[in-house]
Amino acid sequence: MEAACELMRGRGYGAIGVAEICERAGVRKGSFYYFFESKQALTVEALRQAWQGESAGWRAVLESEDHPFRRLEALLRAQAQSQHDSKRDVGTVRGCLYGNLTLEVGRHDEAVHACLKEIFDEQVVMVHKVLLEAYTDGHLPATRASRDHARAVLAQLEGMVLFAKLDNDPHHLDTLWPQVEGLLGIA
Amino acid sequence: MEAACELMRGRGYGAIGVAEICERAGVRKGSFYYFFESKQALTVEALRQAWQGESAGWRAVLESEDHPFRRLEALLRAQAQSQHDSKRDVGTVRGCLYGNLTLEVGRHDEAVHACLKEIFDEQVVMVHKVLLEAYTDGHLPATRASRDHARAVLAQLEGMVLFAKLDNDPHHLDTLWPQVEGLLGIA
Repeated sequence: MEAACELMRGRGYGAIGVAEICERAGVRKGSFYYFFESKQALTVEALRQAWQGESAGWRAVLESEDHPFRRLEALLRAQAQSQHDSKRDVGTVRGCLYGNLTLEVGRHDEAVHACLKEIFDEQVVMVHKVLLEAYTDGHLPATRASRDHARAVLAQLEGMVLFAKLDNDPHHLDTLWPQVEGLLGIA
Repeated sequence: MEAACELMRGRGYGAIGVAEICERAGVRKGSFYYFFESKQALTVEALRQAWQGESAGWRAVLESEDHPFRRLEALLRAQAQSQHDSKRDVGTVRGCLYGNLTLEVGRHDEAVHACLKEIFDEQVVMVHKVLLEAYTDGHLPATRASRDHARAVLAQLEGMVLFAKLDNDPHHLDTLWPQVEGLLGIA
């Protein structure tokens, strides 16, 4: 699963085959098919496992005792940092695996699409929860604590990651927080 | 080139081969290789041609005599409309071909990446020019008429297109303008 994620982060879903995944992982094709029915099945499992690990980090940050805005800011800073780390470690901004596959695969591959939708839906719910807390605490009017606003925050993150990947420049992500302050009207 | 764009919009770059492009276009492989060296070469030409057509529309809107903010709003409305049209005509939000390929291909394919970078760089320059006009006209402080702000506007567009594609819901794009008002601090 790690080998698949690694390969797909670099070149996408369609360009990678089971043979190449097996070669990278150092396993035989027979072993692969003992555990997974197809590349699709492996990808769904790999995405789920990746998000299971990553979402724990999201929860740790978003469910802390800090001011709701500080939690959001910390989440965005962590996202920027992971692209800075990628640039430092492998020389390229690899972007977000979920975003990459969402734009590549679309709805053509039902199982992969459904899995990506679950992951992003969970992200929207998590950010929305923080906005609702900010509303409850009197920091944000109800009109700006909507699910649409949570989606807009994540859209800004995904869009800036796209430009960071395009330009191979993680510094694009350093201004995410002021952008989100603007989106939420709290600048 | 149309057949290639059509296929890649749906399933990406890596999953589509020359044989399939030829079949869709109703031409023989021999004819293909008479005109193009490879799928990569065709893709670069197809992307250039697509953007050449599309950028004329961008220029018409962004270089009009309207108030700078009305021009930006019109651009975003046109982008939303094209995803509404896609949903109406083929049943799915197909997203932005440039964004799709940027996230899928990354820097792995040098020629395709360089072409996508040119296209997005031109988009950033076009939006930045409008922000600078808004500054000159006294509608925007210099600090918010930066190239970074132009990129942030386009990032919000690409990010919301990602969610519209994920959820197959073009209505996500109906609130782009208020979001951009927030990003520019002009709400």
